[in-house]
Amino acid sequence: MAGKYVYFFGEGKADGKAKMKNLLGGKGSNLAEMTNLGIRVPAGFTISTEVCTIYYENKGKFPEGLEKEVEENLKKVEKTMGAKFGDTENPLLVSVRSGARVSMPGMMDTVLNIGLNDEAIKGLINQSGNRRFAYDCYRRFVQMYGDVVLGLKPEGKEEDPFEVLLDKKKREKGVKLDTELNGQDLEDLVKEFKVLIKKRKGVDFPDAPWQQLWGAIAAVFRSWDTKRAVEYRRINKIPSHWGTAINVQTMVYGNLGEDSGTGVAFTRDPATGDKRFYGEYLLNAQGEDVVAGIRTPHPINKLGKKDNNLISLEEVMPKVYKELEGIYQKIEHHYKDMQDIEFTIQKGKLYLLQTRTGKRTGFAAVRIAVEMVEEGLIDKETALMRVEPGQLIQLLSPIFGRKEKEEAIGDSKLLSRGLNASPGAASGKVVFATDEAVAMVNSGDEVILVRLETSPEDIQGINVAQGILTARGGMTSHAAVVARGMGKPCVVGCGAINIDYQKKKFSVNGKVIKQGDYISIDGTTGEVIQGKMSTYPSEIAQVLIDQTIKKEDSLIFQHFSKLMQWADSIRKLGVRTNADTPKDSKAARNFGAEGIGLCRTEHMFFEGDRIDAMREMIVADDIEGRKKALAKLLPMQRQDFIEIFKAMHDLPVIIRTLDPPLHEFLPHTDKEIKNLANKMNVPYEKLQAKVISLHETNPMLGHRGCRLGITYPEITEMQARAIFEAACEVDKQGIKVIPEVMIPLVGDVNEFVHQKRVVMKVAEEVMDKYGVKLKFLVGTMIEIPRACLTADEISKEAEFFSFGTNDLTQMCFGFSRDDAEKFLAEYMERGILKDPPFHTLDQKGVGELMKVAIEKGRKGRPDLEVGICGEHGGDPQSVKFCHRVGMDYVSCSPYRVPVARLASAQAVLEEKKKSS
Amino acid sequence: MAGKYVYFFGEGKADGKAKMKNLLGGKGSNLAEMTNLGIRVPAGFTISTEVCTIYYENKGKFPEGLEKEVEENLKKVEKTMGAKFGDTENPLLVSVRSGARVSMPGMMDTVLNIGLNDEAIKGLINQSGNRRFAYDCYRRFVQMYGDVVLGLKPEGKEEDPFEVLLDKKKREKGVKLDTELNGQDLEDLVKEFKVLIKKRKGVDFPDAPWQQLWGAIAAVFRSWDTKRAVEYRRINKIPSHWGTAINVQTMVYGNLGEDSGTGVAFTRDPATGDKRFYGEYLLNAQGEDVVAGIRTPHPINKLGKKDNNLISLEEVMPKVYKELEGIYQKIEHHYKDMQDIEFTIQKGKLYLLQTRTGKRTGFAAVRIAVEMVEEGLIDKETALMRVEPGQLIQLLSPIFGRKEKEEAIGDSKLLSRGLNASPGAASGKVVFATDEAVAMVNSGDEVILVRLETSPEDIQGINVAQGILTARGGMTSHAAVVARGMGKPCVVGCGAINIDYQKKKFSVNGKVIKQGDYISIDGTTGEVIQGKMSTYPSEIAQVLIDQTIKKEDSLIFQHFSKLMQWADSIRKLGVRTNADTPKDSKAARNFGAEGIGLCRTEHMFFEGDRIDAMREMIVADDIEGRKKALAKLLPMQRQDFIEIFKAMHDLPVIIRTLDPPLHEFLPHTDKEIKNLANKMNVPYEKLQAKVISLHETNPMLGHRGCRLGITYPEITEMQARAIFEAACEVDKQGIKVIPEVMIPLVGDVNEFVHQKRVVMKVAEEVMDKYGVKLKFLVGTMIEIPRACLTADEISKEAEFFSFGTNDLTQMCFGFSRDDAEKFLAEYMERGILKDPPFHTLDQKGVGELMKVAIEKGRKGRPDLEVGICGEHGGDPQSVKFCHRVGMDYVSCSPYRVPVARLASAQAVLEEKKKSS
Repeated sequence: MAGKYVYFFGEGKADGKAKMKNLLGGKGSNLAEMTNLGIRVPAGFTISTEVCTIYYENKGKFPEGLEKEVEENLKKVEKTMGAKFGDTENPLLVSVRSGARVSMPGMMDTVLNIGLNDEAIKGLINQSGNRRFAYDCYRRFVQMYGDVVLGLKPEGKEEDPFEVLLDKKKREKGVKLDTELNGQDLEDLVKEFKVLIKKRKGVDFPDAPWQQLWGAIAAVFRSWDTKRAVEYRRINKIPSHWGTAINVQTMVYGNLGEDSGTGVAFTRDPATGDKRFYGEYLLNAQGEDVVAGIRTPHPINKLGKKDNNLISLEEVMPKVYKELEGIYQKIEHHYKDMQDIEFTIQKGKLYLLQTRTGKRTGFAAVRIAVEMVEEGLIDKETALMRVEPGQLIQLLSPIFGRKEKEEAIGDSKLLSRGLNASPGAASGKVVFATDEAVAMVNSGDEVILVRLETSPEDIQGINVAQGILTARGGMTSHAAVVARGMGKPCVVGCGAINIDYQKKKFSVNGKVIKQGDYISIDGTTGEVIQGKMSTYPSEIAQVLIDQTIKKEDSLIFQHFSKLMQWADSIRKLGVRTNADTPKDSKAARNFGAEGIGLCRTEHMFFEGDRIDAMREMIVADDIEGRKKALAKLLPMQRQDFIEIFKAMHDLPVIIRTLDPPLHEFLPHTDKEIKNLANKMNVPYEKLQAKVISLHETNPMLGHRGCRLGITYPEITEMQARAIFEAACEVDKQGIKVIPEVMIPLVGDVNEFVHQKRVVMKVAEEVMDKYGVKLKFLVGTMIEIPRACLTADEISKEAEFFSFGTNDLTQMCFGFSRDDAEKFLAEYMERGILKDPPFHTLDQKGVGELMKVAIEKGRKGRPDLEVGICGEHGGDPQSVKFCHRVGMDYVSCSPYRVPVARLASAQAVLEEKKKSS
Repeated sequence: MAGKYVYFFGEGKADGKAKMKNLLGGKGSNLAEMTNLGIRVPAGFTISTEVCTIYYENKGKFPEGLEKEVEENLKKVEKTMGAKFGDTENPLLVSVRSGARVSMPGMMDTVLNIGLNDEAIKGLINQSGNRRFAYDCYRRFVQMYGDVVLGLKPEGKEEDPFEVLLDKKKREKGVKLDTELNGQDLEDLVKEFKVLIKKRKGVDFPDAPWQQLWGAIAAVFRSWDTKRAVEYRRINKIPSHWGTAINVQTMVYGNLGEDSGTGVAFTRDPATGDKRFYGEYLLNAQGEDVVAGIRTPHPINKLGKKDNNLISLEEVMPKVYKELEGIYQKIEHHYKDMQDIEFTIQKGKLYLLQTRTGKRTGFAAVRIAVEMVEEGLIDKETALMRVEPGQLIQLLSPIFGRKEKEEAIGDSKLLSRGLNASPGAASGKVVFATDEAVAMVNSGDEVILVRLETSPEDIQGINVAQGILTARGGMTSHAAVVARGMGKPCVVGCGAINIDYQKKKFSVNGKVIKQGDYISIDGTTGEVIQGKMSTYPSEIAQVLIDQTIKKEDSLIFQHFSKLMQWADSIRKLGVRTNADTPKDSKAARNFGAEGIGLCRTEHMFFEGDRIDAMREMIVADDIEGRKKALAKLLPMQRQDFIEIFKAMHDLPVIIRTLDPPLHEFLPHTDKEIKNLANKMNVPYEKLQAKVISLHETNPMLGHRGCRLGITYPEITEMQARAIFEAACEVDKQGIKVIPEVMIPLVGDVNEFVHQKRVVMKVAEEVMDKYGVKLKFLVGTMIEIPRACLTADEISKEAEFFSFGTNDLTQMCFGFSRDDAEKFLAEYMERGILKDPPFHTLDQKGVGELMKVAIEKGRKGRPDLEVGICGEHGGDPQSVKFCHRVGMDYVSCSPYRVPVARLASAQAVLEEKKKSS
């Protein structure tokens, strides 16, 4: 029978188990579980989270009976380990560690090597045969105890007084590293440390092991309530009353000689998901040595050997390896997931220190999940929950060869790191302007477009480039958004690069890169590398898009494809795509899109000589002039729509009418205006006056969206004509079209009504002309807070809503996407906001507005079709929110479609779990 | 007993009465009421609104029994008037007019002179003795009937076919005006019109009076459902099912000779409120002649005579005048309000055609309301409802002499009209730049600051100027807002003026005005006048602010003061003021402000050499540099606050921490940057880089408000120090201070918490230092939609909310105040929005957010203090909304304080009425 406050683990039996996480914390319950599995872990016990709560309720007093329980359990530990607390022969040393329900990394304190004093040290020397090792333990213990328990660790910038003494000692001995101090030095330091404590705190360092233990327990409980822990909990919404458990556990050492060692291992390959035991170890080492990178760790088994000089554990300790193999299989089979384990070998005896679910790449996640289903370990629903939807992006992005990149970085070719705005690898010649990019591509070059930041005029450049690098802007800057939409690698906000457009070069960390020089960017990591590197399209893209690999030849495609099928059979949310071109539409369809949720028409106005007609319209003096210019655009838009409708046959296509303010179509510098005036054959003054009159202080809140369509109904009219003429023509070819016309930036029903009338009139005219009767919808983008608040009125007129959460987020927060990155980074750091709001939907504020809009919208029209076309439509957390609030579909960029499919399936499973 | 569908009025007795407006429409019920009062109105009858509803329900059929009722009632009319429908001797002619519950001016149709045909015309000639007059009536009738009943009036641009014939006739006769055609010409036209009708419609013009009457009735009912009427109702939220009533009434004519006439009169002087009968008339004229301005109307009585050549009605028809005097007294006594009446004298017989509440100036409104209470006609509550709160602004604004202005305009000195952004009159020399404005004022000039638009750097210029004129911007542009805040006359958005800063001049409609030339602007009307004109401060300001007139010598002050006292005794809403200076604070206090609701601190940073310290802070490289610069600002801010606290002793003062983005403090042109770099002794490149790095695409959504305070806590800290040091010093002088610190632009509770901590820390430090314990609050401005949606979280931390409805409106609508005027004017015109949202609070959208915020806010903190400090706090409709949603106070600019006091009293009365 378990004690009331204290739970023992050791010798194949534990009072607790994995499911007692609330009481024992994550660490404690897992140690218990392993023990129960018959796996050898250093014996110890867990003081429950209840004690923490009582400790605080009683103003720092422990509950009655705790002392006795701790004593009894420590005795069991002594017995199990065959060692004794404070013994001069074989002293038991323990660690005291926090362990809350939820991991709070680095927030609370730990004390190691408790039980050491001037007597016990003899035992440790004796046991280890290593005086220097023993005194190093002692020195660390006194320092840690002084810092944590006695409170000598200074806040802020002041230096740790123990470190000051340590530095002094090293100077005295003329050495640089701690490891260069010998046993005597360390022994001296222990004495000096104790003197310091006496001087600073007026108390003797406690030599009695029990006093040490209780001091450490109290200190760790106290660390639950430090300022930073409280702040961390506030930000992460962890209730204070949860409290932390404390684990008191026997210390084991992997650095007691060549019969000792330590290592980490994964039950399957965390990079590829391959079903093989994978890990590294070092003999005569502590855990931190394996990860510190000073010594090169050895592979755990022969299978993992790449370098014959490094002998594997399998070879050097075959018995221990055999035991470890048995353990890993047992653990994986028990937890039914790939595990990441830590072990220590102390004098030939294997101890497991930790097991936890292993982190893995997207590739590994998909493979492991699918294969575990095939192995009968888990069911499909579990498999679906095992893959982070966002990880799928990795499977779809082009890649550099791993070796080549490592070599380049080793060779000092890493120029800088920016924000990893759009994943994938790209290599090409640097170019700074769109026209030159086009020229270079036309003459056979591959280019990387490098800009301070991009604007819609750079679309053509972005389109022809292999990748985009910008010095400014954040994850939601123009370059980032467009690149993600196109599935093109992009690194933004790389502030270290200094661009000189005139001299066509940029400098970075002392290097100068000129136009025409090769660089390589990795949008998955944000790295910018000098020189050319080979890139490879993702295998899945080669199967689905390029069709250069056959399905049956691609293992990863088959895994991916199975997972997607499972997701589709479960999800309720539709998944559409944001696509502006036939090419994107086709790609999205291959990725599983069930329609177009947002086709932006403005990009169509920038291509080739279309911008000329657009500019002619803007500069026209009257409606006749505007109509003349628009007439030139009509056949081009119509042709675009014909192709898109064909690509999306049988599926709905939402087309948004013109959205950006007109000044985006005009140049802004004097020189450009002069050139354009010449080209257009209009007086410079007239063009300049137009540019000035269109200038806006806050363009994002300016004359755009339906506001433009109301001032210039002829624009909406032309677009509606292009849409319906295209639809009728395609329909006549026997191809089914489902057009949905979307009016942007509506804030009041009257705005919508105005634009709807224009659309309906044209629709009827065109259908009459063609003698075709089409089913179509006219709806609106919901992207203005006021539209949400008056959604009942709007839905009486609008047949569908599509949330434009980019703008909605801007207005709900009062953040400008173009400007906010400056302080948003700081907001994340300080924990003022938890998630970047332009990336993950802010459910509390923006989401609240959306809920209001859906509720009111369905009040006005019960069968209202509701979707989302903001970038959040491809963010897993946001997709799940969309499911929960009852939307009909999400729409995202083509490469995000699989992400949304998986996330929406997970949403169903999470809901199911919650209600069960 | 009244008929079921038709209500007679005439001969001192009517079936209806004023209270039957829903059934008889506004016009019909009022005609009935006058009849019942024994006032002679031309007899007639009203067909009820029910008939309209039935007409539409039955697809254009009249209800059974209607025909009989109409016949019976027409007989009564014939009997009353002694005339007969279609008679060749004394024909009865009638008009058919619409008359809905609510006036829908110009939306529906009217047919006059029904009953004329080739027989009846003889009678009309006979009766009038005027062949030309009779045929003119006939010609108009046929045309009107053809247009309205037979549907010949073309839509759109096409010309009225009758007008085409009329023009042809005038060309044939070589005349220009209709009045130059003689009887024969008109008789010929009648024939030609009838031929036209036959040709176009294939039917004969109906000669039978009854056929004419039913045709007209049906046509007027049909006009309830024309496109424009439907649109008007949609915009004005008038339900379609209300329907319109129809009034069939005997025609009377004031143009039958020198014993006939027509006029309009007011029962009191509508300009001053003086209790005297006031009006104008013309002999031998129709109603439209009095207002058309071709003939000069004569005064109605001897009292009104200014020009002895114009003989009054009192002199020329003493009996009729006497009768009219009796009527006006009766009517005013009956309606208990000043009335605007229309009358016609037909052959010596007086008919009243209409009475309605008379429009009046603010001066008249206050005087009439107060005097009617004193006369015992109405009670105080009624008096309070009689004055439009916004009209009070007129009473407080400086004025031009009326005569002088009329002369100037007559003399072609009117340069242009802009938007009347801030009322009042100002005259001064034109100046284009702030520094020159200051220089000119220092050398004794009065100036008008003329700018394309203003920015915070112009504050000093606005401050010293008499008035402000801008070419750009709307009612909520910087110039407009600041000027209204200062109570300074301002005309904005005067697009006709072309400013040339370099040549220091502007041109307008062919005239050129140079710097130093005098202009005068009337902010009450928007007029811009060439030359100097005398201005006078309002009498009330002379009493309250300047104290150059004694209270007992000012009648208007006494009336105003009484009304204000009545308002104060009733209202529940507190009224505070937005004031940044001791001067404004004092003025506002005199106007009745009960505290400061918003003291903006940024204006304080622009004065004198403070901006230098501010700039030093901005350019500083590190926190030490910033603190050094801020230390220079501390004593100046402290002194400002000391003076404001003293001026507002015993009342709460809300001080907002720094709000605008830092780039507003730096210059933007290369030249200015160079100058400043020199002055500051920093490299030009450094300053330029700073300007570039601070540039924002959408500054309104940028790095400002609490976002600044989070990045630079030292700014908030300095401001808190200045506030609390000032408060403690004033407190030590025995003056009671109630500081409330307001954090702007909060969107998430974590932002507020961050800033609150900074403030609290300083507050405690300072109070400790002074040994003073002050009561103070720390709260937040609610101006971001997300703050409203998460108000429950925020109010757990914030002690008060103050709605910043300017920004809240911008973000709720997605409108930029600086840019939206361009299309908002169009929105108003098209009826897409009813009220300008930056002027009158949008209750449906923004108001909904506010309701959410108040409800959630009080959930988090039941005693939360809630107010508003956006400009809407001075708009009467918005003030009433604030009352209804349960706010504690509104805050507005000093000159709006009386407006808010009255509006909030009215809100109480309206609520009382609604619940009774």
